[in-house]
Amino acid sequence: MSPSVYYEYDVVVVGAGHAGCEAALAAARLGAKTALLTMNCDTVGQMSCNPAIGGVAKGQIVREIDALGGEMGRVIDETGIQFRMLNLSKGPAMHSPRAQADKKAYQFCMKWKVEQQENLTLRQEMVKGLIVEQDRISGVIVHGDAQYHCRAVILTTGTFLQAIMHTGEAKTKGGRAGEGTTGTLSDSLVHLGFELQRFKTGTPARLNGRTINFSVLDEQPGDEDPQPFSFMTEKINQPQMSCYLTETNDYVHKLINENLDRAPMYSGQINSTGPRYCPSIEDKVVRFAERDSHQIFLEPEGRYTNEYYCNGISTSLPRDVQDKMIHSIRGLENTEIMRYGYAVEYDFATPTQLNPTLETKQVEGLYFAGQLNGTTGYEEAAGQGLLAGLNAALKIARKDDFILDRNEAYLGVLIDDLVTKGVDEPYRMFTSRAEFRLLLRQDNADRRMTPVGRRIGSVSNERWQKYQAYDTELKKAAQFIQSTRYQGNTLEEWLRRQDIGWTQISEFAPALEDFHFSERAIQQTLIEVQYAGYIRRQTAEIEKQKNVEALHIPDHIDYQVVPNLRNEAKEKLSRVKPRNVGQAGRISGVTPADLTVLVLYLNSSSRMAT
Amino acid sequence: MSPSVYYEYDVVVVGAGHAGCEAALAAARLGAKTALLTMNCDTVGQMSCNPAIGGVAKGQIVREIDALGGEMGRVIDETGIQFRMLNLSKGPAMHSPRAQADKKAYQFCMKWKVEQQENLTLRQEMVKGLIVEQDRISGVIVHGDAQYHCRAVILTTGTFLQAIMHTGEAKTKGGRAGEGTTGTLSDSLVHLGFELQRFKTGTPARLNGRTINFSVLDEQPGDEDPQPFSFMTEKINQPQMSCYLTETNDYVHKLINENLDRAPMYSGQINSTGPRYCPSIEDKVVRFAERDSHQIFLEPEGRYTNEYYCNGISTSLPRDVQDKMIHSIRGLENTEIMRYGYAVEYDFATPTQLNPTLETKQVEGLYFAGQLNGTTGYEEAAGQGLLAGLNAALKIARKDDFILDRNEAYLGVLIDDLVTKGVDEPYRMFTSRAEFRLLLRQDNADRRMTPVGRRIGSVSNERWQKYQAYDTELKKAAQFIQSTRYQGNTLEEWLRRQDIGWTQISEFAPALEDFHFSERAIQQTLIEVQYAGYIRRQTAEIEKQKNVEALHIPDHIDYQVVPNLRNEAKEKLSRVKPRNVGQAGRISGVTPADLTVLVLYLNSSSRMAT
Repeated sequence: MSPSVYYEYDVVVVGAGHAGCEAALAAARLGAKTALLTMNCDTVGQMSCNPAIGGVAKGQIVREIDALGGEMGRVIDETGIQFRMLNLSKGPAMHSPRAQADKKAYQFCMKWKVEQQENLTLRQEMVKGLIVEQDRISGVIVHGDAQYHCRAVILTTGTFLQAIMHTGEAKTKGGRAGEGTTGTLSDSLVHLGFELQRFKTGTPARLNGRTINFSVLDEQPGDEDPQPFSFMTEKINQPQMSCYLTETNDYVHKLINENLDRAPMYSGQINSTGPRYCPSIEDKVVRFAERDSHQIFLEPEGRYTNEYYCNGISTSLPRDVQDKMIHSIRGLENTEIMRYGYAVEYDFATPTQLNPTLETKQVEGLYFAGQLNGTTGYEEAAGQGLLAGLNAALKIARKDDFILDRNEAYLGVLIDDLVTKGVDEPYRMFTSRAEFRLLLRQDNADRRMTPVGRRIGSVSNERWQKYQAYDTELKKAAQFIQSTRYQGNTLEEWLRRQDIGWTQISEFAPALEDFHFSERAIQQTLIEVQYAGYIRRQTAEIEKQKNVEALHIPDHIDYQVVPNLRNEAKEKLSRVKPRNVGQAGRISGVTPADLTVLVLYLNSSSRMAT
Repeated sequence: MSPSVYYEYDVVVVGAGHAGCEAALAAARLGAKTALLTMNCDTVGQMSCNPAIGGVAKGQIVREIDALGGEMGRVIDETGIQFRMLNLSKGPAMHSPRAQADKKAYQFCMKWKVEQQENLTLRQEMVKGLIVEQDRISGVIVHGDAQYHCRAVILTTGTFLQAIMHTGEAKTKGGRAGEGTTGTLSDSLVHLGFELQRFKTGTPARLNGRTINFSVLDEQPGDEDPQPFSFMTEKINQPQMSCYLTETNDYVHKLINENLDRAPMYSGQINSTGPRYCPSIEDKVVRFAERDSHQIFLEPEGRYTNEYYCNGISTSLPRDVQDKMIHSIRGLENTEIMRYGYAVEYDFATPTQLNPTLETKQVEGLYFAGQLNGTTGYEEAAGQGLLAGLNAALKIARKDDFILDRNEAYLGVLIDDLVTKGVDEPYRMFTSRAEFRLLLRQDNADRRMTPVGRRIGSVSNERWQKYQAYDTELKKAAQFIQSTRYQGNTLEEWLRRQDIGWTQISEFAPALEDFHFSERAIQQTLIEVQYAGYIRRQTAEIEKQKNVEALHIPDHIDYQVVPNLRNEAKEKLSRVKPRNVGQAGRISGVTPADLTVLVLYLNSSSRMAT
């Protein structure tokens, strides 16, 4: 027998997808000696599903990740092939950046960033299990009789735990077509007492663009003036590519209906829940039976490939049905399928088992991030990875937890939703999930996140200097427009009128030109002036709530002895263990009345304690 | 149950590595409707081992592949990061192009070429077995209850048949780290009566360049004037990268010797044979015990990655020994291993079961190419793929077989060696394997191959026009130097003198300048003049041999009744079924005396027949 081999790290991140890369980079940048372990170094940062980053609410998350010093924004800026700002016809809070990625360029760009990071070691390893001593993580076991000893482990296994792929009746073990699965790690988690559940997600077929008849399709070009995701990117210089639109039709819907008994989702072959807001085409046809067409976006997978992704027709129907379906769609009559669509079922861990730091409640030093927590989406995964990586490194350095409030960031909403409410379907971010979405705009993500990131050490000097210069501009602009008057009104008051813009006030007060404000600073100033009323009201609301919500709940409170608390509330509160009244109030099954009872009890017991 | 699904093609190629891609492109270009099936579309054209193309004898093969219209040369020209012409101090026959590749760029460039090819469909499929009816191939079975019906199948499974990877005591199923294996296909072959054997090959660790101390290493830059592989590439324009040299030492050798009992090659865990001329470092230390150092080339794996390949220390030693070994090498004291070295054992099919077209003797329409035939090297694989693809398409079109002679091409030597002699270790090409290597130069590969390629249809119009223009130059140059005299001697005679070059004869006969010969045409003319004597002698030798060698052996000859033939020869000849006396003579175990007996018998029986 060979002796076991040991490696020593502060933080070990398992899985190098969107969550894992951000987690590892964040921990390493905070000074933790970090190992990032992946089954295959060639799949670091791989986009398993659609070749795009951002979108409504998701784009805002990417901006927040970037403002905190994360990597996703910079990588998509370098490797994007089509940039669009969505919802430009709506107000600034709804503006959402989205970009098509050169999928392979994105992935290898992210790998390179990881390779270049000081304190960070990327290694190809198959993780078999966790080492836990007295409810504290102490390392992981890898294939080949070796162990990584460490003080924190961040699991980001995506769809790879006990994964099974389905295409019609055909089943294959593996978390992504052509790849494997990690069975023993699930066993290790169950053994530690974690509750695992099953979700499913799906992906559509990939087509060869050489055989698509683009001439009959509607072209969707990128924006004329593409906007970057990262606050560090000055300009997107690369040329843009187009997407193409087509749609399903009566014949396709009839075909799907006729073959529903062979669809794993309907035949009983799959029982787990899929993402409601990203349904398969068979789901759409069943749930929206009245519709005679669904849109399909044909998205190029890269600049140097003919592969196209069929956004809108994710499916696990059998291959012969997929063949017929594709060939019945306008423009795809003679199109070759390169890879069939499939659904994948995988284990996730009920996220109410987590603290808001993403550390598990059961095992100290063990963090979960990404799809393992029941979410869907690269951006949601990356955001969790970033926060888990930061918190793991902060904990090792004996610093305070880093927890974002719901009114500070979509990332705050995301984490709070997960750990408080749990999930009963794959969780995707929407603007409607945020109570204060007028504050959580893509344009001010840096103003919300960069100062807090700087405080905890995740913001580089370069980013901080750039941010400070911008912040100085904003302050000067605000000061000037508030203090300068024209015909009795301040410039700020003038700007509140719909018909008055920056050009007009520059005429009212020519000294404004001397500041040479950047376009970004001018736009931000205008947005703030226009939103000032809403923002004041939302801020007041937040303050009011904060007083009650901030009320701390002791770790070892016994809910059984709280008088007048309903049994359902006792059970839910005991399980979730909220940190404060705000979190308690967001638990499903805890009513406002329960909350009042709880607040009374907390106030009385704290009086008794003093 | 779902109904089985069928697809119809002329040619199905299984596996999309270096052999599979050339096979599929060649068949499609000859007009066959071709499907290329791969376990994972993201690993098309992947370089499993070192990130380089070419080298001594291998570079010549790439030039031949290119001259026949193959793709390898063009892809490495587009994606190479360091080009060197090896052996420039030796004669032109030894000049051998070699280039470091941007490994990922190479792979995705090849995938793109495949995607763009008319008549060719790339599909992600797991092939489970073959469909054979009355000793004739009729298709393949794939995972998901589907079949491809076709007239020819080309198997190019590389190291993926029943593959097991070893790193010390740790074993993993799979043909390449992080990937799977194809077990059932081996069963299908055995069931059809094919003899399968086991070989092993190995690969070294990959290192993170960020942690290599390059300042203490010797830099090896590329050539100042990089030469392309493809006859279609005018110039290599991309910037070049450097390799770095270091070496093993006494301590490393001691370490290896102390751990030999844990090396799968020596512990008995691996019994199969590895490539003798590309040995693992543990092999080198054992076999060359007198040497106190072996060279290591650190080769960059790409332009946008920090990964480095350690050429020279392929190993399957346990990971802890690899850790210590790497960290004991100059410049690598603090280097991070990203992926460990490993050996892989895999099934190959005894290549004497093949005709010189690479069609199997047992099953009509079934072709084997690449590592499946017991070879090693991307170039050897690509060459076989090209020839198998061409022959499959030619057969379907009812045209003549395409077989290259040993005096025409390294590809001829390669195929003849394989199908005649078989292999008892992974077969690699060397210049010494070619009897007529002065003829088989890299500089004249187009003159040897492009006209024959044009004849069978594998050479594009563009290539043919370019070749013809060059050929016209050569003819004009030859005519001029043979017919123009100076001081009584022809210019050709002057050029035979070591001290006379093109500049001098241009002074002797200023009219030469008016032709504006290209640099390539001038160089080729000079080489031909200098080699004329050798070439004449080798050509005469070939002619003499041809008379005997060309003597056809009937398909159904019964060697048992040949008088005076030794039993060993009878057995070997019956097994190999040579097509002519030349091939018979190259079978190991067939002596010159046996050959004489055979020739006598053939001559007498043909006399009898007439």
